[in-house]
Amino acid sequence: MTPQPNPDAGAAVKAADRAHVFHSWSAQELIDPLAVAGAEGSYFWDYDGTRYLDFTSGLVFTNIGYQHPKVVAAIQEQAGTLTTFAPAFAIEARSEAARLIAERTPGDLDKIFFTNGGADAIEHAVRMARLHTGRPKVLSAYRSYHGGTQQAINVTGDPRRWPSDSGTAGVVHFWTPFLYRSRFYAETEEQECARALEHLETTIAFEGPGTIAAIVLETIPGTAGIMVPPPGYLAGVRELCDKYGIVFVLDEVMAGFGRTGEWFAADLFGVVPDLMTFAKGVNSGYVPLGGVAVSGRIAETFGKRPYPGGLTYSGHPLACAAAVATINVMEEEGIVANAKRLGAAVVEPGLRELAARHPSVGEVRGVGMFWALDLVKDRETREPLVPYNAAGEANAPMAAFGAAARQHGLWPFINMNRSHVVPPCNVSEAELKEGLAALDAALSVADTYTE
Amino acid sequence: MTPQPNPDAGAAVKAADRAHVFHSWSAQELIDPLAVAGAEGSYFWDYDGTRYLDFTSGLVFTNIGYQHPKVVAAIQEQAGTLTTFAPAFAIEARSEAARLIAERTPGDLDKIFFTNGGADAIEHAVRMARLHTGRPKVLSAYRSYHGGTQQAINVTGDPRRWPSDSGTAGVVHFWTPFLYRSRFYAETEEQECARALEHLETTIAFEGPGTIAAIVLETIPGTAGIMVPPPGYLAGVRELCDKYGIVFVLDEVMAGFGRTGEWFAADLFGVVPDLMTFAKGVNSGYVPLGGVAVSGRIAETFGKRPYPGGLTYSGHPLACAAAVATINVMEEEGIVANAKRLGAAVVEPGLRELAARHPSVGEVRGVGMFWALDLVKDRETREPLVPYNAAGEANAPMAAFGAAARQHGLWPFINMNRSHVVPPCNVSEAELKEGLAALDAALSVADTYTE
Repeated sequence: MTPQPNPDAGAAVKAADRAHVFHSWSAQELIDPLAVAGAEGSYFWDYDGTRYLDFTSGLVFTNIGYQHPKVVAAIQEQAGTLTTFAPAFAIEARSEAARLIAERTPGDLDKIFFTNGGADAIEHAVRMARLHTGRPKVLSAYRSYHGGTQQAINVTGDPRRWPSDSGTAGVVHFWTPFLYRSRFYAETEEQECARALEHLETTIAFEGPGTIAAIVLETIPGTAGIMVPPPGYLAGVRELCDKYGIVFVLDEVMAGFGRTGEWFAADLFGVVPDLMTFAKGVNSGYVPLGGVAVSGRIAETFGKRPYPGGLTYSGHPLACAAAVATINVMEEEGIVANAKRLGAAVVEPGLRELAARHPSVGEVRGVGMFWALDLVKDRETREPLVPYNAAGEANAPMAAFGAAARQHGLWPFINMNRSHVVPPCNVSEAELKEGLAALDAALSVADTYTE
Repeated sequence: MTPQPNPDAGAAVKAADRAHVFHSWSAQELIDPLAVAGAEGSYFWDYDGTRYLDFTSGLVFTNIGYQHPKVVAAIQEQAGTLTTFAPAFAIEARSEAARLIAERTPGDLDKIFFTNGGADAIEHAVRMARLHTGRPKVLSAYRSYHGGTQQAINVTGDPRRWPSDSGTAGVVHFWTPFLYRSRFYAETEEQECARALEHLETTIAFEGPGTIAAIVLETIPGTAGIMVPPPGYLAGVRELCDKYGIVFVLDEVMAGFGRTGEWFAADLFGVVPDLMTFAKGVNSGYVPLGGVAVSGRIAETFGKRPYPGGLTYSGHPLACAAAVATINVMEEEGIVANAKRLGAAVVEPGLRELAARHPSVGEVRGVGMFWALDLVKDRETREPLVPYNAAGEANAPMAAFGAAARQHGLWPFINMNRSHVVPPCNVSEAELKEGLAALDAALSVADTYTE
């Protein structure tokens, strides 16, 4: 756990990376990736021996932290017995992972279609909905992210969609409730909720109810800003789906598996979708895995008629064994309950206390281990600290905030004008307090950019 | 290696599978998946203790066979040190995998963008081509398979595309050379090659050269029938791409990493594409991994301008460590050379000898450990033993062929009227002879359906 400096090894790793690795979402010549030497629990360290407290959980996937010994042991054991096998067979780890997931998903989402990650889970959920209904269109939200493959990026509602959008793909975006930056001129959560539902129903009416296969929503939008929907909103969407025969897809890739202090965020709202996508937390990203939990009614559609989709690594034994171990560890160690308890007892009051002292904090919002600080230039106008999709010089305030956090030993999650507080769900109280102290220092830097 | 029967355990695995696993490409109530207990080398076995010689390599991915001890050990070691980490960092296993792959890819395909599998590799290759050229259309082949996500299935040219095709996605299908079932009324390979290139250039002309971003081809089409292109064809496509400023994408998901007796099938033809997709053999499917090898010119396009695509598990450390170990094992044990040597010395003469005796064999074709038996009702008319995309009763002859092979201890790869001979690349001569004997028996059953 005490990192040993080894700068020569780090330089070699970095050199080969720069020569041969083409990185996600990046201008390849303008990036300078940190070479990481190791990680354990809530921390990782570089080859200089600098250690960081990770408030990002990777990309919000290490819900049990890095290198959990029981899950590592389970991966090693499965690797030694049957690391891989083709999808058309019954395999113990695959069966057991499906059973454990189905036992935890809400309602009758009891059939599990395994994918490699969240993007292909959304691809298949959309396909299932289109074939189940025979309708072409999908409604999804602005301020959302659903993955990087073509169908998933079309459904996405953040700027990563712009360069790749194929407008012909039958996706219509609508607005979801978010009182702090209301699109509905609302003044209360009740008003925001009612108007958002009215907006959705009007959109359905004008698009044509009989043309809409699915409404796809993140239960709580993640990268787009962790906007917890107001009470009644998701239940209202469920009602609209029932009224118009639309498949309700909830994306729990980021919000699922303990992140919100529940097994699934849908549990916070008592809502059961028809299809639910997952990935990330299902096995803490220890081995690539995602999937779609399928309701009985939709599974029945593909009972005697083949489901026309699949993939080589569907239900990969090593990935499924990691899921089995992760779910069991989360139960044994009360990790979901830890996220709920420390989220309410430490994160929320800690962030609210920071907000009270730092004028750059416009809003604190979230639940469990899933929190956002919405940073602003001016609390009255709520003007974001940096413009939407800012880059380069325009993004200097957030860059300075991030640099200050790292100087104080904290690796922060930053997206546009927000910093998300998304540590592992088994983070300790002491680690949270250490991270809050570093955020305090970084927010003092952000404050210098307020007006 | 001697399987111990344990039917009760098998029944439990099967029951949980039937209750909770939603399977790829299947009518969920009509399948009866075999519960597999274990696997080693070229064999796997069920819970009754029945052992099968695997002539499928899973879905043509276990190029080093099951449970190779050195690769298992490498996975266990990486799991114990750093099983996962986010993509925006430099990680030793990621750097080393990229370096080893880039050293083996042809030409200047030196930057590696890692994905989770072959489908998302094609998704990203198409996106890179569209953004590099600023053009919308993609040309791809009938008789091809490129993956199950929306863009990949649009590009695909087999019936799995039909239920999910979004015709608006800008994909145009054309015909590639295949003398045995020529679309060009050709009588020689030279004629087939020349006419196929003329057909492609005419298609380019009528679609508008300035509208075409990419031509996407499997170097040797895999699931569609292992049609080795005639000499000069791929070089001719390369010339057309250069002439019209089109990005040439070769899909080596199935053909790459030793399958053809070369590191990449492109090496057989001395052709260098602009983008090359891979998956499966890169780490024998031991951990989900795929990717795109990117040429210098296309990498430069995304040098100062961000590449708008990515995924959480890009360059997953555990998957990359498995690739490093797999590539090193393939080198150390001469596995690519083994595929070439035994392909020429045992598989090809063995299959030709079977063809001479069995009237159901219309054509034997392939290279390395990548062979197809094209089964026919009538050698003169070349009418396939079952109709295109046959199911149920119409598919009875192929079902009977498969059952006979399994009765003789061989698990065969079957697609439409073909059986593919695609064992691990490190298969032994004795195993090949055992499999050929089982094929002999199964072909006697197929023969009873000839006219």
